[in-house]
Amino acid sequence: MNDLTDNPISATVDFERDGVQHGFLKLPYSRDDSAWGAVMIPITVIKRGAGPTALLTGGNHGDEYEGPVALSKLAQQLSADEVSGRVIIVPFMNTPAFQAGRRTSPIDKGNLNRSFPGKPDGTVTEKIADYFRRTLLPLADIVLDIHSGGRTLDFLPFAACHVLPDKHQQAQCEAGMRAFNAPYSMRMLELDAGAMYDTAAEQQGKVFVTTELGGGGSSSARSVAIAERGVHNLLVHAGIVEGDIALRPTVMLDMPDGDCFMASEHDGLLEMCRDLGEEVSKGEVIARVHDIKRTGAAPVEYRARRSGLLAARHFPGLVQCGDTLAVVAETVG
Amino acid sequence: MNDLTDNPISATVDFERDGVQHGFLKLPYSRDDSAWGAVMIPITVIKRGAGPTALLTGGNHGDEYEGPVALSKLAQQLSADEVSGRVIIVPFMNTPAFQAGRRTSPIDKGNLNRSFPGKPDGTVTEKIADYFRRTLLPLADIVLDIHSGGRTLDFLPFAACHVLPDKHQQAQCEAGMRAFNAPYSMRMLELDAGAMYDTAAEQQGKVFVTTELGGGGSSSARSVAIAERGVHNLLVHAGIVEGDIALRPTVMLDMPDGDCFMASEHDGLLEMCRDLGEEVSKGEVIARVHDIKRTGAAPVEYRARRSGLLAARHFPGLVQCGDTLAVVAETVG
Amino acid sequence: MNDLTDNPISATVDFERDGVQHGFLKLPYSRDDSAWGAVMIPITVIKRGAGPTALLTGGNHGDEYEGPVALSKLAQQLSADEVSGRVIIVPFMNTPAFQAGRRTSPIDKGNLNRSFPGKPDGTVTEKIADYFRRTLLPLADIVLDIHSGGRTLDFLPFAACHVLPDKHQQAQCEAGMRAFNAPYSMRMLELDAGAMYDTAAEQQGKVFVTTELGGGGSSSARSVAIAERGVHNLLVHAGIVEGDIALRPTVMLDMPDGDCFMASEHDGLLEMCRDLGEEVSKGEVIARVHDIKRTGAAPVEYRARRSGLLAARHFPGLVQCGDTLAVVAETVG
Amino acid sequence: MNDLTDNPISATVDFERDGVQHGFLKLPYSRDDSAWGAVMIPITVIKRGAGPTALLTGGNHGDEYEGPVALSKLAQQLSADEVSGRVIIVPFMNTPAFQAGRRTSPIDKGNLNRSFPGKPDGTVTEKIADYFRRTLLPLADIVLDIHSGGRTLDFLPFAACHVLPDKHQQAQCEAGMRAFNAPYSMRMLELDAGAMYDTAAEQQGKVFVTTELGGGGSSSARSVAIAERGVHNLLVHAGIVEGDIALRPTVMLDMPDGDCFMASEHDGLLEMCRDLGEEVSKGEVIARVHDIKRTGAAPVEYRARRSGLLAARHFPGLVQCGDTLAVVAETVG
Amino acid sequence: MNDLTDNPISATVDFERDGVQHGFLKLPYSRDDSAWGAVMIPITVIKRGAGPTALLTGGNHGDEYEGPVALSKLAQQLSADEVSGRVIIVPFMNTPAFQAGRRTSPIDKGNLNRSFPGKPDGTVTEKIADYFRRTLLPLADIVLDIHSGGRTLDFLPFAACHVLPDKHQQAQCEAGMRAFNAPYSMRMLELDAGAMYDTAAEQQGKVFVTTELGGGGSSSARSVAIAERGVHNLLVHAGIVEGDIALRPTVMLDMPDGDCFMASEHDGLLEMCRDLGEEVSKGEVIARVHDIKRTGAAPVEYRARRSGLLAARHFPGLVQCGDTLAVVAETVG
Amino acid sequence: MNDLTDNPISATVDFERDGVQHGFLKLPYSRDDSAWGAVMIPITVIKRGAGPTALLTGGNHGDEYEGPVALSKLAQQLSADEVSGRVIIVPFMNTPAFQAGRRTSPIDKGNLNRSFPGKPDGTVTEKIADYFRRTLLPLADIVLDIHSGGRTLDFLPFAACHVLPDKHQQAQCEAGMRAFNAPYSMRMLELDAGAMYDTAAEQQGKVFVTTELGGGGSSSARSVAIAERGVHNLLVHAGIVEGDIALRPTVMLDMPDGDCFMASEHDGLLEMCRDLGEEVSKGEVIARVHDIKRTGAAPVEYRARRSGLLAARHFPGLVQCGDTLAVVAETVG
Repeated sequence: MNDLTDNPISATVDFERDGVQHGFLKLPYSRDDSAWGAVMIPITVIKRGAGPTALLTGGNHGDEYEGPVALSKLAQQLSADEVSGRVIIVPFMNTPAFQAGRRTSPIDKGNLNRSFPGKPDGTVTEKIADYFRRTLLPLADIVLDIHSGGRTLDFLPFAACHVLPDKHQQAQCEAGMRAFNAPYSMRMLELDAGAMYDTAAEQQGKVFVTTELGGGGSSSARSVAIAERGVHNLLVHAGIVEGDIALRPTVMLDMPDGDCFMASEHDGLLEMCRDLGEEVSKGEVIARVHDIKRTGAAPVEYRARRSGLLAARHFPGLVQCGDTLAVVAETVG
Repeated sequence: MNDLTDNPISATVDFERDGVQHGFLKLPYSRDDSAWGAVMIPITVIKRGAGPTALLTGGNHGDEYEGPVALSKLAQQLSADEVSGRVIIVPFMNTPAFQAGRRTSPIDKGNLNRSFPGKPDGTVTEKIADYFRRTLLPLADIVLDIHSGGRTLDFLPFAACHVLPDKHQQAQCEAGMRAFNAPYSMRMLELDAGAMYDTAAEQQGKVFVTTELGGGGSSSARSVAIAERGVHNLLVHAGIVEGDIALRPTVMLDMPDGDCFMASEHDGLLEMCRDLGEEVSKGEVIARVHDIKRTGAAPVEYRARRSGLLAARHFPGLVQCGDTLAVVAETVG
Repeated sequence: MNDLTDNPISATVDFERDGVQHGFLKLPYSRDDSAWGAVMIPITVIKRGAGPTALLTGGNHGDEYEGPVALSKLAQQLSADEVSGRVIIVPFMNTPAFQAGRRTSPIDKGNLNRSFPGKPDGTVTEKIADYFRRTLLPLADIVLDIHSGGRTLDFLPFAACHVLPDKHQQAQCEAGMRAFNAPYSMRMLELDAGAMYDTAAEQQGKVFVTTELGGGGSSSARSVAIAERGVHNLLVHAGIVEGDIALRPTVMLDMPDGDCFMASEHDGLLEMCRDLGEEVSKGEVIARVHDIKRTGAAPVEYRARRSGLLAARHFPGLVQCGDTLAVVAETVG
Repeated sequence: MNDLTDNPISATVDFERDGVQHGFLKLPYSRDDSAWGAVMIPITVIKRGAGPTALLTGGNHGDEYEGPVALSKLAQQLSADEVSGRVIIVPFMNTPAFQAGRRTSPIDKGNLNRSFPGKPDGTVTEKIADYFRRTLLPLADIVLDIHSGGRTLDFLPFAACHVLPDKHQQAQCEAGMRAFNAPYSMRMLELDAGAMYDTAAEQQGKVFVTTELGGGGSSSARSVAIAERGVHNLLVHAGIVEGDIALRPTVMLDMPDGDCFMASEHDGLLEMCRDLGEEVSKGEVIARVHDIKRTGAAPVEYRARRSGLLAARHFPGLVQCGDTLAVVAETVG
Repeated sequence: MNDLTDNPISATVDFERDGVQHGFLKLPYSRDDSAWGAVMIPITVIKRGAGPTALLTGGNHGDEYEGPVALSKLAQQLSADEVSGRVIIVPFMNTPAFQAGRRTSPIDKGNLNRSFPGKPDGTVTEKIADYFRRTLLPLADIVLDIHSGGRTLDFLPFAACHVLPDKHQQAQCEAGMRAFNAPYSMRMLELDAGAMYDTAAEQQGKVFVTTELGGGGSSSARSVAIAERGVHNLLVHAGIVEGDIALRPTVMLDMPDGDCFMASEHDGLLEMCRDLGEEVSKGEVIARVHDIKRTGAAPVEYRARRSGLLAARHFPGLVQCGDTLAVVAETVG
Repeated sequence: MNDLTDNPISATVDFERDGVQHGFLKLPYSRDDSAWGAVMIPITVIKRGAGPTALLTGGNHGDEYEGPVALSKLAQQLSADEVSGRVIIVPFMNTPAFQAGRRTSPIDKGNLNRSFPGKPDGTVTEKIADYFRRTLLPLADIVLDIHSGGRTLDFLPFAACHVLPDKHQQAQCEAGMRAFNAPYSMRMLELDAGAMYDTAAEQQGKVFVTTELGGGGSSSARSVAIAERGVHNLLVHAGIVEGDIALRPTVMLDMPDGDCFMASEHDGLLEMCRDLGEEVSKGEVIARVHDIKRTGAAPVEYRARRSGLLAARHFPGLVQCGDTLAVVAETVG
């Protein structure tokens, strides 16, 4: 049984020591260009006395940037004096993917958020997953994983929590999401969540908040500000950092069924007819796919299957058969 | 002398025939996966009677999408009846680059806009340049080349013309730029323009208009609308299509010297402190570069060397030493 | 247990609906160039009333073309009126491999015909295998999988059935093979068949027919005609399509032991001394391997280890140590 | 002027020495994996006394195999006693391409037959071209370059000569072609021959014969036999080897104009409706291109633009927009 | 259970036959460039009568050369007359890695020495591991696996044995190590040995000796001489070959704890301040890492955490964060 | 004429300013992953008052490390106070090659030392060459370019000067070489020097010294010490830095003719029979090449064509046909 095998990752920081420590999670990785090499995952631990632990992560997908920027700044700026309890910061969770600017790991093509529960003797990505599940998550009370759309998707900025079987836990997660206070908020029912980090955290009873804050493989001053404010709010909410949370209005979104998702059945040049945040009506053309091999051919039209707000879109200018073109969300109460 | 050598490209359309023709510029290209293959560049010619010729191009860089979308739609929708003269449309000018979604050609790494005057017996990209210079440009009176920032830059949407030695020609180009009527407009002094398509067109005395309409390797409903409206306006302005031009306000921009450009001297994670279109003041931090190998290190700060408007930025979340981080433009009159 | 996990593939066609439907098997596939993308496997279902179901596949290996051509034509031409029962057509079974023109999948190097029984949570290729085993095969009564030699082998055109433990089932398969009526026919004893599609079908008690119809990564008018005629015959034989089968002579082949196979123990330039379909005698030189690094060296000679017909050969002009050079089959009865 | 620069290639054989020598043309090539390395082109020189010189080459394109096999065998078997004069054999002319099994050089993508006149200080392929033009061709009286279709084309087996301005030279070339005595023969008017080896040889007044003997990236016992018999015949014809030439019937072909060539304007799955050597009539469908992204779509039909014999075809099962699908030749006299 | 599945590798040699046999372990491997291909692992068996069996291997990692050279020579030179018992020689154990000059297999990135116990239906590397474990190791009494540092490490030349639970077995292994008689010798406690060949051999009760004889992806006359002398000594020691062992002095080394290992936490240009075999004192700077992106920055200094001998070092001039920089060993007794 | 075109490289340092400046040579380079990017070549200028200028370079080939280490340290340590005149330091001359750890540039495969005189509008490597020739070399009086063998060669450590037509210049260069005072020294007659940096420097009348100080893609404490001592000595010799030069014995070497070089005509596993610095006798076997595809084959033996000292060798364990195996030098007076 894998859970009896030790994970080969060792930390150069001491999770029980007070103060600020910057170090690495060191994962031995023997390969052609380094027989005795290692994957080095940067980590910061900031601790003072007793109190709850927050585990803050970015770079779960390596091409999403609000988390890495906001958490790099937090790691550099937060002093132990400001903390009651512990903040564990891993800004570049899937470090090999992040350093390559790719969603997945260039080492093993691993999508970290589809690699849980992980394996201590598996691929590099599976070892990282196992270490988070068996070593870091048990240390935490509240867990925030900052996502964005990455290079190929773009999202309205929202924080999210999941519909969970334990309604008390769900309420706590929802309180965390509301404390994060992004411009949009979403309560999600994940259908195929078995291999996600979210599930690994929730199954251990943690308060878990996730986000989608933009995309396109970039970040902006505006989207980073949302992340920084949300992280600060959440630490205050958790009682780790002192301060007030001045809540701003947030739009509650819902994606009730599969009709929210629109996929392309053609390769080609994408023309979006609506932009993120715009209202769309059922039956309206919201995207066209043009032929890139010839001129004069009629484009394929894709029509909304429900009314709502354009909440996400395919980002790159070219699209492949099977790609999700757009997501239409419903605004709730 | 290369100009005595025939260009190997042949057109499947007849530039002198009235009506709408969709076809190809066929460039023979023998290679490992096709001994007798060809690069096929889609082209549309729409002609009715006598009158001026407009040459409209997109995809000069293959990862810029407003031109390809707007011109694909025009090629599919414009009828010969609406035209007095001729419209030549090449929506994917560097077709191999465009079909690969890359700035440059995957065949020869050729940056088409740095390949003029081209060579009939050179690389695939040089052959395309030579064909435009010696065959297509001589057919045209007015030339529009639609650019955006591509995958690695993002721009405020502007149309542009160049400062030219022939002031009469410059005035005509400026009139074209104003007719295009993008939200921003710019009169540019190119310093190193020798190998650009712009220069090849201007040296033949053509009225030449170019644009930057967005970037990031994507397009939006809003940016495509700017392109479509600009193309229509320009055809009306040229007297090829009938109609009125309802001019909207445009902001005139200028980039007077090298202090407008800010380059990174470090690799790392980019944090933009200002967004496109925002005012920046000289000395203000407008970007930071964070270490991606460790936490806790102070980021490198980049400060504006002049006041103005943030007109362009590096788009991807990671930055390399030498990359242009941002461009600050001056608003004029 | 994997069989309790749902396969993530969904079909855009309804297998129970009468009429002709063209659609996709959609396999979600998150990756660097499409976070929310999918592999889209084209499928056609043609159904009218009650009656048996035939499952017809090509492109199990992606560089074999008789199946894809013949089945693409059938999918486009066969009307529901002509059918009693159901015909399920998947012309490009391992779609990623087929679209890349490769034997195996460019996504995961998966050889589909060595990936059974498959895994619903495995690689893309393993998910396809699992879907065929658990969803499509149970729908079928008769199964035809059209193979050829692919880019690196060339075969005499034959249909085949396997020696099976259930002699009644074997007789039905053999009747199907005879109905297909290729120029050559072969009853095969597979030694290492555990991971083959053939075995997955046969273990469910299906009537299963396979073929090898040529090779070299191409097809010809002649080899496609064999496939089309064979498919038609088989549908008539199954009672799904009306018509007569005019049987032509077929040569029965056998490959009784390992002496039929001749492998190279050298890298080099291949010289075949006999062509497909020619008689060879035991001890005769049937291939030579020449040195490609120097001239003047004596080639290595490979001699037939048994007499028979040259039934298959290595196709490319260069050969590697370990490659099968030739197969000599025995003619039977 | 490049012709004043020495070519860096040195030969390990002495062209003036009697006897059989196997050696190399050594081309220094400094690169990442060998700072002081070289490209080594195998060569055999067989010489006895005075008499004419034949220069025999294969592997001009690296994926064509009849020449390499026939000439490797000749180099190994021909003794100096059998020769009056000199035979220079280079079976793998573009050695890097040949050893990689590719049409062009993996070092510089060079298509040797489009690299003449070459450059002594150019790419590896250009250096080889220059060496043949300035060193080997001047040694020769009669030149044979054995081609086939390579991996992506397939041809009826023919020998060929060119229409030349010097009619005496043309007659000698035609006599050489007839002596080679392939099943088909063709007198060709090359339109774009400037960079070909053929032209370099003919401009020096040499008797030049070329061939196309098959293709698909393979060879057969039958096609190699044509090459071996042709080489022998030509050496007898040149007076270098003693013997008789028993001429067999040959079909004279002609490709009078561009209507002989049929190119695809679509990507897809190729269905040939006629095979090599079959008669086709003007207007007849000779190929179809099927959609590989979906089923149920009508294929694109390609019809013969003239009547004649199917003399060449695209070989691989998939086809790209721009590929030559088929060549229809006219039979003459 | 995998151990019930047959390994697909077959040997072309007969392990029970007297005499010298050179052949292959043939591992069927179907792939894009050879549908019916195989990995061919060279093997030599030299046997005469009854007596112990030695299994000698090199190339477990493909970029280590003392083993392949010494064992290639032995295979070519040792006659059956000189042997009492059996010598099985596999000089290139991970043949695909060795032929590519890489530590791991280019087929599946497999590190053979981390792939035990292997799987008969796994990757190519896992199949090789399974074959050694279940077929070759059971034939052996004494096992020698010759390692070096490979392309990225350099070692003082030593033979080694492991601390084992069975002290009798350990004593036999230590006797073997002493018989090998390298300039340095080491008794090692492996901490993470589960997937090593060493462990597979030791678990079967075999006398197992391993080595590190140099590195850098090269070998020298001196290092090969150490290997050849060691192999000869070991065969004499095992009673398979007759002769005397003239023992030379050897330095006993020990690596008692993790302070022996020094890893880089920075990317950069490596400056070693001590060379292999030199004494180092605790606290002394033994390496520096310089910035490769700019001049003028202070290098990072790495200081010895214990005193001893520099026993191993990172070899390439550039170093990555996580790489082992140096190993300091203690001299014993 | 290219010399009329401005080189696009700009320096961020002022060559005329006193003091220590660390900066970059900035070469604009537009590419897929950075539309407005640049190659940034680190440079240090250390100047005080009038006096001669030394131009010191490493990393001309990117896998040679003594120069980069010694010059990085000098740039960081040398103060302006210690200097009379000017020291220009470019430790990583071909920066893209150096940062990739490769001999040649990953951008254009350019071997910088074969790219002179360069082109201002050529490839990246040609632009660097042009900038050194037209901008940096004219600033210098004495020029030192530190080489080693790189990843694929290993050398005895020597400084060198060339035989020059101007005997006064040659004497000055030889004095520089002697001042550098490496363990070995060599006066070289370059045969094919046209495209070398050496030649560009010498043609401008500069005092030019070069070296080979080791190899294998690594450096050692010992080899770096030779470089550091040599650089210091040369600066003293030039009168730029004060101090004494304590000359140590040096062995003068000569490579009088082509018999010094031994090249492989086979692919295989290299066995060196002599190590660097050892005496070899004419006719002695100094290397063997073993078959890597099978055991039992006799290796190919390479024998010395002259007596002398083994001065250089092929480094990697595998060798390709055409590689230089070894260089035997003569010791002089």
